Amino acid sequence: MIPGPYLLYLGHSDDPVGIKTSRGLAAFRAHDCVGQWRHPDCPLTLGLADLDPVAARAAGARTLVLGIANAGGHLSDALVRDALAAVAAGLNVASGLHQRLRDHPALVAAAARAGVRLFDVRDPPAELRVGTGLPRPGRRLLTVGTDCSVGKMYATLALHRALTARGVPATFRATGQTGILIAGEGVAVDAVVADFISGAVEALAPARADADDDGGWDLIEGQGSLFHPSFAGVSTGLLHGAQPIALLLCHDPSRPHMRGLPHYPLPDLAECLDANLRVARLTSPHVAAVGVALNTAAMDEGAARTLCAETGDRLGLPCTDPYRFGADALVDRMLECAPSTPSIAASA
Amino acid sequence: MIPGPYLLYLGHSDDPVGIKTSRGLAAFRAHDCVGQWRHPDCPLTLGLADLDPVAARAAGARTLVLGIANAGGHLSDALVRDALAAVAAGLNVASGLHQRLRDHPALVAAAARAGVRLFDVRDPPAELRVGTGLPRPGRRLLTVGTDCSVGKMYATLALHRALTARGVPATFRATGQTGILIAGEGVAVDAVVADFISGAVEALAPARADADDDGGWDLIEGQGSLFHPSFAGVSTGLLHGAQPIALLLCHDPSRPHMRGLPHYPLPDLAECLDANLRVARLTSPHVAAVGVALNTAAMDEGAARTLCAETGDRLGLPCTDPYRFGADALVDRMLECAPSTPSIAASA
Repeated sequence: MIPGPYLLYLGHSDDPVGIKTSRGLAAFRAHDCVGQWRHPDCPLTLGLADLDPVAARAAGARTLVLGIANAGGHLSDALVRDALAAVAAGLNVASGLHQRLRDHPALVAAAARAGVRLFDVRDPPAELRVGTGLPRPGRRLLTVGTDCSVGKMYATLALHRALTARGVPATFRATGQTGILIAGEGVAVDAVVADFISGAVEALAPARADADDDGGWDLIEGQGSLFHPSFAGVSTGLLHGAQPIALLLCHDPSRPHMRGLPHYPLPDLAECLDANLRVARLTSPHVAAVGVALNTAAMDEGAARTLCAETGDRLGLPCTDPYRFGADALVDRMLECAPSTPSIAASA
Repeated sequence: MIPGPYLLYLGHSDDPVGIKTSRGLAAFRAHDCVGQWRHPDCPLTLGLADLDPVAARAAGARTLVLGIANAGGHLSDALVRDALAAVAAGLNVASGLHQRLRDHPALVAAAARAGVRLFDVRDPPAELRVGTGLPRPGRRLLTVGTDCSVGKMYATLALHRALTARGVPATFRATGQTGILIAGEGVAVDAVVADFISGAVEALAPARADADDDGGWDLIEGQGSLFHPSFAGVSTGLLHGAQPIALLLCHDPSRPHMRGLPHYPLPDLAECLDANLRVARLTSPHVAAVGVALNTAAMDEGAARTLCAETGDRLGLPCTDPYRFGADALVDRMLECAPSTPSIAASA
């Protein structure tokens, strides 16, 4: 496990979506975060104290989390320099980028000298198997999206909170760096070797059956989008491996185009949901949509509630911003769906 | 480059599809293959001389190709033992399995002592970028399949042969271990980190444009199937990265169920083609199907020709076994399609 408390890195970032790992930790592990570290050119804030590594260490921080993301997961020279400064201050360093901390000899040597550790969160498990698609019992929900970074993890965690509040057992299954840092475990499915995507998810969310069937849910965090030309392979393998009985479609209405790709518009919500259901049916023939989650962070409350109502009416599904307004409408639909599904029957 | 001539490994295999890498080399690099090495319990043959490593080395072989495949690409103890025997006989060893030769210290040490080399064909390129989906000009065809190992590589190479025979420039783009061994280059897309599937294919088959546009085709070998729950993520990323103007659907009519998965039936051909076209349209809106390739190796000629005719009539497309009967009907359709496509217009 990665020792807390954490210092959250914002660095030089001016991309609100790019700092999503730091933001996610601040939102869901607030009590473990002592501050944020940003350079003078960074206009973003998480509302935490601004601390440099030395000050953060003095305030009790144990680990710098390099909680920023970029397409390709590149570990830039600037990032390495800042990681070295953190190490020199006596902090461990955690990163979820594709390029690994341990592949930088200077960083490895400095960490050894300082007696601190480097954590590459995106490392996949050592032993992966290819997916089998064998039907497995259990109530599994997968969040899917119109795009990357539209709020799938937030929606999944909001469902977790709402189910738990009702006394329904639920397990959050993290599939990305932020989720893994929040949950303390999981598999970064976009970092596994391509042949093993669905197999990794089958292992991540095994059957909840027989003695293990507590009537609860596995809530699997989605990744990417079937409509994102960079990452749809990951999303496809995730759909097949998750074998979900329920899908929750996530969308950010403020997104002008597919993330990083101005030449790609966002898909229509109904078309996107239809495509996800079609792909999911290969391994889960009776999968159903249980709702739509909108990320309305950029809207005032009245407009957000109106958009949720309109979107729900249009698609014939419960629609809300589950992080902002609660997930009860979605959970109601999940609990309606579950008892009648063949997957559940198979576990009886 | 991997030094030939080759000794082709069959080992203990009794699975005709599992030896496809050895079989592919025997079919398409026959002049580079001096023999096959099989144990007494192996009932399969490629029609080559049976040689053990010592005899093969004496006959001029330079490299043992571990040309067998299994789900997960596991390098078993038996394989390692045989690789050690080949090294002791003075042969290099090439493998396309997911588990790498270089990760076996005993093998690495033995190769160093013997002065021979180990080749891990499935190693992805060091520098990969995520896909962009940016439209790029060029005539690209991708083979897609109802299942794994149904003849996509054979069909792609048959098209290459037929185009070349007509004087149309064509480049075979290998995406799997067998294709890479045959072509001497390529990228094993199922072995790249999942986030980079489509980006790897964009790099493998770059724009054939402007000064580089010789009027030729990039023929991209497909992998897996959208309907295979283990590998559909790879197939999806390959479709998006390939940005094909033409798809050729490949099918093995003797296949009783999805490879390795008795609980999954093969998809209907029309449904499979439709799904592939739908996924391909994200990055290549005007993609068209140019035909169907049947692998009729298990059928007599009359039955094979009848099935091709019936299948072609049913789908309204040229249909043949391009390896057995030639690819002319398919090439005719490709050349009809190409001049009118927007991708080609974009290169003018």
